[in-house]
Amino acid sequence: MKKVVLAYSGGLDTSVAITWLKEQGYEVVAVCLDVGEGKDLDFIKEKALLVGATESYVIDAKEEFATEYALTSMQAHTWYEQKYPLVSALSRPLIAKKLVEVAEQVGATAVAHGCTGKGNDQVRFEVSFQALAPHLEVIAPVREWSWSRDEEIAYAKEKNIPIPINLDSPFSIDQNLWGRANECGILEDPWAAPPEDAYDLTNALENTPDTPDVIEIEFKQGVPVALNGQEYLLSDLIQELNKVAGKHGVGRIDHVENRLVGIKSREVYEIPGAHTLLVAHKELEDITLVKELAHFKPVMEKKLTELIYEGLWFSPLRTALQAFLKETQQYVNGTVRVKLFKGHAIVEGRKSPNSLYDEKLATYSTDDAFNHASAVGFIELWGLPTKVHAVVNKQQEQKVTV
Amino acid sequence: MKKVVLAYSGGLDTSVAITWLKEQGYEVVAVCLDVGEGKDLDFIKEKALLVGATESYVIDAKEEFATEYALTSMQAHTWYEQKYPLVSALSRPLIAKKLVEVAEQVGATAVAHGCTGKGNDQVRFEVSFQALAPHLEVIAPVREWSWSRDEEIAYAKEKNIPIPINLDSPFSIDQNLWGRANECGILEDPWAAPPEDAYDLTNALENTPDTPDVIEIEFKQGVPVALNGQEYLLSDLIQELNKVAGKHGVGRIDHVENRLVGIKSREVYEIPGAHTLLVAHKELEDITLVKELAHFKPVMEKKLTELIYEGLWFSPLRTALQAFLKETQQYVNGTVRVKLFKGHAIVEGRKSPNSLYDEKLATYSTDDAFNHASAVGFIELWGLPTKVHAVVNKQQEQKVTV
Amino acid sequence: MKKVVLAYSGGLDTSVAITWLKEQGYEVVAVCLDVGEGKDLDFIKEKALLVGATESYVIDAKEEFATEYALTSMQAHTWYEQKYPLVSALSRPLIAKKLVEVAEQVGATAVAHGCTGKGNDQVRFEVSFQALAPHLEVIAPVREWSWSRDEEIAYAKEKNIPIPINLDSPFSIDQNLWGRANECGILEDPWAAPPEDAYDLTNALENTPDTPDVIEIEFKQGVPVALNGQEYLLSDLIQELNKVAGKHGVGRIDHVENRLVGIKSREVYEIPGAHTLLVAHKELEDITLVKELAHFKPVMEKKLTELIYEGLWFSPLRTALQAFLKETQQYVNGTVRVKLFKGHAIVEGRKSPNSLYDEKLATYSTDDAFNHASAVGFIELWGLPTKVHAVVNKQQEQKVTV
Amino acid sequence: MKKVVLAYSGGLDTSVAITWLKEQGYEVVAVCLDVGEGKDLDFIKEKALLVGATESYVIDAKEEFATEYALTSMQAHTWYEQKYPLVSALSRPLIAKKLVEVAEQVGATAVAHGCTGKGNDQVRFEVSFQALAPHLEVIAPVREWSWSRDEEIAYAKEKNIPIPINLDSPFSIDQNLWGRANECGILEDPWAAPPEDAYDLTNALENTPDTPDVIEIEFKQGVPVALNGQEYLLSDLIQELNKVAGKHGVGRIDHVENRLVGIKSREVYEIPGAHTLLVAHKELEDITLVKELAHFKPVMEKKLTELIYEGLWFSPLRTALQAFLKETQQYVNGTVRVKLFKGHAIVEGRKSPNSLYDEKLATYSTDDAFNHASAVGFIELWGLPTKVHAVVNKQQEQKVTV
Repeated sequence: MKKVVLAYSGGLDTSVAITWLKEQGYEVVAVCLDVGEGKDLDFIKEKALLVGATESYVIDAKEEFATEYALTSMQAHTWYEQKYPLVSALSRPLIAKKLVEVAEQVGATAVAHGCTGKGNDQVRFEVSFQALAPHLEVIAPVREWSWSRDEEIAYAKEKNIPIPINLDSPFSIDQNLWGRANECGILEDPWAAPPEDAYDLTNALENTPDTPDVIEIEFKQGVPVALNGQEYLLSDLIQELNKVAGKHGVGRIDHVENRLVGIKSREVYEIPGAHTLLVAHKELEDITLVKELAHFKPVMEKKLTELIYEGLWFSPLRTALQAFLKETQQYVNGTVRVKLFKGHAIVEGRKSPNSLYDEKLATYSTDDAFNHASAVGFIELWGLPTKVHAVVNKQQEQKVTV
Repeated sequence: MKKVVLAYSGGLDTSVAITWLKEQGYEVVAVCLDVGEGKDLDFIKEKALLVGATESYVIDAKEEFATEYALTSMQAHTWYEQKYPLVSALSRPLIAKKLVEVAEQVGATAVAHGCTGKGNDQVRFEVSFQALAPHLEVIAPVREWSWSRDEEIAYAKEKNIPIPINLDSPFSIDQNLWGRANECGILEDPWAAPPEDAYDLTNALENTPDTPDVIEIEFKQGVPVALNGQEYLLSDLIQELNKVAGKHGVGRIDHVENRLVGIKSREVYEIPGAHTLLVAHKELEDITLVKELAHFKPVMEKKLTELIYEGLWFSPLRTALQAFLKETQQYVNGTVRVKLFKGHAIVEGRKSPNSLYDEKLATYSTDDAFNHASAVGFIELWGLPTKVHAVVNKQQEQKVTV
Repeated sequence: MKKVVLAYSGGLDTSVAITWLKEQGYEVVAVCLDVGEGKDLDFIKEKALLVGATESYVIDAKEEFATEYALTSMQAHTWYEQKYPLVSALSRPLIAKKLVEVAEQVGATAVAHGCTGKGNDQVRFEVSFQALAPHLEVIAPVREWSWSRDEEIAYAKEKNIPIPINLDSPFSIDQNLWGRANECGILEDPWAAPPEDAYDLTNALENTPDTPDVIEIEFKQGVPVALNGQEYLLSDLIQELNKVAGKHGVGRIDHVENRLVGIKSREVYEIPGAHTLLVAHKELEDITLVKELAHFKPVMEKKLTELIYEGLWFSPLRTALQAFLKETQQYVNGTVRVKLFKGHAIVEGRKSPNSLYDEKLATYSTDDAFNHASAVGFIELWGLPTKVHAVVNKQQEQKVTV
Repeated sequence: MKKVVLAYSGGLDTSVAITWLKEQGYEVVAVCLDVGEGKDLDFIKEKALLVGATESYVIDAKEEFATEYALTSMQAHTWYEQKYPLVSALSRPLIAKKLVEVAEQVGATAVAHGCTGKGNDQVRFEVSFQALAPHLEVIAPVREWSWSRDEEIAYAKEKNIPIPINLDSPFSIDQNLWGRANECGILEDPWAAPPEDAYDLTNALENTPDTPDVIEIEFKQGVPVALNGQEYLLSDLIQELNKVAGKHGVGRIDHVENRLVGIKSREVYEIPGAHTLLVAHKELEDITLVKELAHFKPVMEKKLTELIYEGLWFSPLRTALQAFLKETQQYVNGTVRVKLFKGHAIVEGRKSPNSLYDEKLATYSTDDAFNHASAVGFIELWGLPTKVHAVVNKQQEQKVTV
């Protein structure tokens, strides 16, 4: 009998998938990864067995997710379409990697995921599988059965699969340490404001405290290592920030985005901790990265962001971009002071042993160390091409435009 | 006697410059441009004559500034270093252009500006002069005399030049329709929070109203043409937004930036109207621009931003980038609903006759018009290079990394 | 009875397709476009009717192809993967456009092409159809029947479809004004040198004349308008260059390229005229485009190249890129002298009324008009960020690298 | 007495500089680097002492230049302005580094170079000095004395400085392993063809052999390690290629380029070995790099090229770009067969253990392993944004354009 390793979430789709896969002749090994979504893992582990899995595993991958995936997002400022810093796109390759590892351990010949046929996640899972274990069969039960919601529920009832109590929630949610993504329901109308119950990790601005929290985040080589002077594991630090920044309503995003599969979709995100870290890290780079590096890094960042969004985490281009990224982070040491207040993470101060901000050069006071006379020669050569162009083309341009 | 046209602001530096230029043997024509900084223009016009100018002109350039410079910034999302959307960099080329026009009218052989030798504005002025009128002599009195503040004041007193009453303000400010820039004083310490009196256009979050304003902005071909259903001249619309968004504390920026002249400097900006428009316009593009255009436009935007920041407005590259930009804006029609509240301009809804968001394609309801089966073939070919790479390099990579 | 408009080439695949489409219940309208491949068009027109088409059209699109598609390739230097300047990718959108026009005229409800399922051209055809006439049905007979070569021939014999005499040629060829593409056969082994019979438009180096031809090409606003002082239609000029440059063996390319559908394939190209024009045009830009434009244009070019290669000619991004391109070409006026010899198109001289090359500035003779002293200030500010970085990070870097 | 370390070439300028620096009160330490220009080093070493240097050093830096500078150029395909792969720009940072090392050893407080005020090399030297030893004084005697040629000769005669016999050569030449650069004289007229005596490393096409050489170059991790099966030090391999490719006239370049200091200048280059290696390496990458990496690497290459050209070798951005580059080269293993003939380096075959070219996927024969049916779904989703755009905007676009 063939074995399949299924990415199991405990929800209706993947529970039905267990039964369905058994009917296709597979022995099902359920694997649930904890990447910080705050689920009841014991319950999920048991439920998989209850609905028919032969084996059921729960894997705590929070710290691995934080230090390899979320950290990359933070250091590379992976704001997809200048708007949201990736959430599900970051966890999918890690889940795929763990499924492949389990498949090797249990001798499975197939892996399965619960994605539909119109999302990005199916691509991320399947390209990751192709990269890591091209010999494995890949099954996408939900995409394959293509039932309506009602048909799926009817099947579940017939097979005695427990129906979750929140089944009539209109939303479709994915969550991890780095944030929470929400789509469907009223959100499908881009003119409608998201209702309050679309959010979970953040307070509405109307309900945030009237007193700010001012925190200090310390970075070493681009890694946030301490919060208010206390050292943390990165996964713990992110979770701690999710709490305090979430309380102040930081990190709500409402975005109509371009999916890889060719459609536009509207999603809302909550990223209280990620937002705070992304903002703080950028400010530290602003004082520690030399100009030409600061101006080129966004080019690399944009490509890395799109690559991850498009499911190509396990591409040699990602590895090469990350070698670039790592080289840049050696300078990113120091402390950033952030005021969390009314949905804002406001950087109020930044300092660094590697700071290239030089008050002696910047000041307009009498301490000025800058040679103002240099500017004359600089401007002359800086503007020289423009000047030659102007002299040569004055006549021609007039001809062209008249 | 040679004539020079001076960019006159009414402040101490350019007032002293009038006297100083006369001592160098020039007849001085003072020109003050109104680009929306809210100055008392009559007073400035008179003061120029009082301190020795032969002629004094005041030019209202608000609408020209709005429709050619600010609009470009908005449509191209010119966030310099992902942080601030240009303020002074936008007005300098227009001021230079007007000075050149006046120089031609009055038969001047020179132009002059009041910039020091360490800022960006000297470059922007002088490269603009080289592009527009390479035959004109350019004089930078402040850079040339290189006096300390005390020496300048002593000279002013000796020459009976009125000393402004706010002379002991620690800040150095530049302002126009699109925003307000502030540097110097305590801001030169990047660890210090900006004091409240560094700001003028925006309320502190602590003092903003507890009730939001919800506004609707209508765009035609990328141009904001109406606010809450009422049509406006663009310069008026921006000023109106400055008021209402400023009341809610929208658009404060605190930035350590890389100047063209090689130093990092710290400035704070206030851009209530600009922030609101930039955010709203981007959201309208999110639903109206096709994916490949939306993903490439930022490349053009980054180059245009740096070009303007670096004083190359009158470059044929700017013209070419703007031809690209114009072509993209034909699709950007529609209305955006924005909630102004506690320092945020939150887009709650967007709609457009050109909207590419297709609820039938995006929905997970039974109305779904998307062909889920297409995804299988798509993923197979999308992932094919990665798969071939994995199969071929599995062995080699292990050799390399072990 | 439903009507389909078929892109007809006269070869076996599309001849069989006529019969096959009739068997599927379609009335077939054959359309053969002349984009300069030098076919016997009368023969093709008749053959279509002979094998069963109801109507058969031959359209001379050479000048339209030259002035809108080939010209774009030349002005934008569309070297795909830095190696070949697009051939088939340029003609497919034009063929699609003409098919759609005919479909409208004859009241057809479908269009058809003869591409297989692993090439780029199927994508280019079908995306063009989607852009121009999303309501039309698209049929790809060859991809659909998926016969082996032998099965196809058997079918042809059974249906009395004439078998071309060169059927045992191992190569698969596509040709137009801009060049000739060849794949298959021995070329599928990337270690094997292409055999001489893989080429048709160019002499082997061994057979080229021992005396060069030196030609002069004149450009107006980026358009080649005259050859050796004689004015030409663009399509004629390209064909003339194909002859003379082909005689000298100019423009052979041997390339392993990345297809859009995920595989690498090896093709050889011949582009004698295109190579000569591309090289000459670039040299004229080198003296007429201002530095910052010359350095950014390649970014636009790369995107435009990939966009066309990937079948997105009818995308608003292409239109926007072309608006940029057009703006740049106003300066590209002048004459280029090219020596055609032993496979080379060597630019020996270039001159232009818009030339920004200024001998007075460039010379090291006593005529030098360049201010050497300006360099001191320029270098000081140009190197300032690097210097500050060095001073600040000396200690840290040593820690990092030791 | 202060000590200065001078980059000494043996020519008139730096010989005069020794005497001139002594007159300014410096003790002069002459350093001549051998980067493969084929000079008589013993003669140069003695001449420095003869004209007044206190100490004179000759340093063989050929292999260091090859493996760190030329190799970077080859792996990153540093074609400046798509035309020439950097020559002087590569050696200047190495020379600067060696001067700084000598300065530390001999206790000098200053370094000096012989560049004028209008070239790129002064920038490259001085920015390198600022990066490596910001405390050292930098002297540019030639730029400072600003003599005409006649004045310089008069000074030399007065001071008994030997005048080189080739002084009336109109050309100004710089050379190293990677190539030879030549400017001045008749070359200053961009309409004039370069005369034969402007070249030295390459035969004219008219004088090349009528029989090709076919060579095989083997690469390991992007490094050329063997030629025709024989292993070489990289510096030797490049020199060997210079000979054989130079014999066949490979690698002549005639370029009007944009200098950093704002002018256009015309130079001719000869790069026989470099051209051959650059072409061969690119072809090996074409079969070993996965598509998305192959398509993004040029972005990195362009930035690296400009950075090096502009004197910023010792920038942290260069280090980061090189980390990216190194990561990509692990796949670039294999052998390339090149036919050297009539000025061409034609790659006839390429093979690699890491080859991603898969004949089974590429072939049109019956061995085809490609799933043609996948294309249908792929095209549907690939073209979906274009299709939606077309459907939505058909009406609006017509309004816009009419």
